Amino acid sequence: MATPIQDNLVTKNKEYASSFTDGHLALPPAKKYAVVTCMDARIDPALAYGINLGDAHVIRNAGASAKDALRSLVISEQLLGTEEILLIKHTGCGMLTFKNEDAAGIVRKNLGEEAAAELGAFKGDFLPFPNLEGAVVEDVEFLKGSKLIPEKIKISGWVYEVETGKVRSVV
Amino acid sequence: MATPIQDNLVTKNKEYASSFTDGHLALPPAKKYAVVTCMDARIDPALAYGINLGDAHVIRNAGASAKDALRSLVISEQLLGTEEILLIKHTGCGMLTFKNEDAAGIVRKNLGEEAAAELGAFKGDFLPFPNLEGAVVEDVEFLKGSKLIPEKIKISGWVYEVETGKVRSVV
Repeated sequence: MATPIQDNLVTKNKEYASSFTDGHLALPPAKKYAVVTCMDARIDPALAYGINLGDAHVIRNAGASAKDALRSLVISEQLLGTEEILLIKHTGCGMLTFKNEDAAGIVRKNLGEEAAAELGAFKGDFLPFPNLEGAVVEDVEFLKGSKLIPEKIKISGWVYEVETGKVRSVV
Repeated sequence: MATPIQDNLVTKNKEYASSFTDGHLALPPAKKYAVVTCMDARIDPALAYGINLGDAHVIRNAGASAKDALRSLVISEQLLGTEEILLIKHTGCGMLTFKNEDAAGIVRKNLGEEAAAELGAFKGDFLPFPNLEGAVVEDVEFLKGSKLIPEKIKISGWVYEVETGKVRSVV
């Protein structure tokens, strides 16, 4: 039986599809860039960052982690021809609120030791960060330091403010 | 000097922020669900999947890989209280078009051996798949089989058609 969340997907998608006219768009992003941002529910990258359909890859994970996004970025740059990366973290991010040992403790308490053992799939690293701007700088440096991201790729780092809807440049 | 892509971000974001009224939204997703979908430029999850701002985590990576999303999903479920996952892959996905050895060969040719060695960061696995529906089923099974995702979490698998804008249920 469908859940209310699934019903919402089906109903809203029907409306969307009924006036859909973008079936001709090509696979490679037209504006040749990739955005890395957070999975946070308060961010709508298309609207907040001005991304038209078909223009850019949008990679989202907990904390807008560049490390976590590396596989996707290599595919974006090397296989699909993108040439620029915007890395955009945000104020009020959940990743500012805990440490690895806190998260592992919650998993152990809620789900048990066998579950905790599976955290090895991502080396037990939830990739939290204690400082927002610092984490933006670190992630941009990580990408610039990776030989998987060639020097010609332009990389910039930003903060999105969930309180105001504003983006500001960091690096 | 700002690139045209950066100029676009700043200009479009100014417009967005000038009429922004959602600064009060809470960190945990109001509708307690997470969507895993592809980074593909032709997908606008908010519009195509009917996600209102503040309602759901949106995780996006190359191919809508559940494995790649595991860290983010554990944070979403265990730390931020989401209770349902929609996994949505799509037609025309780039991940259907290559194999791991093809991608590694391109990296080696374009960027050299040192870069290829860094592919170990994600075990050299670009997570391509040869069959769309099959990959949806596999990813849903992966999540259901993981002890990190407790049984009470509802999980469903879908395909989004980039040609028509329609979503269809797979599992």
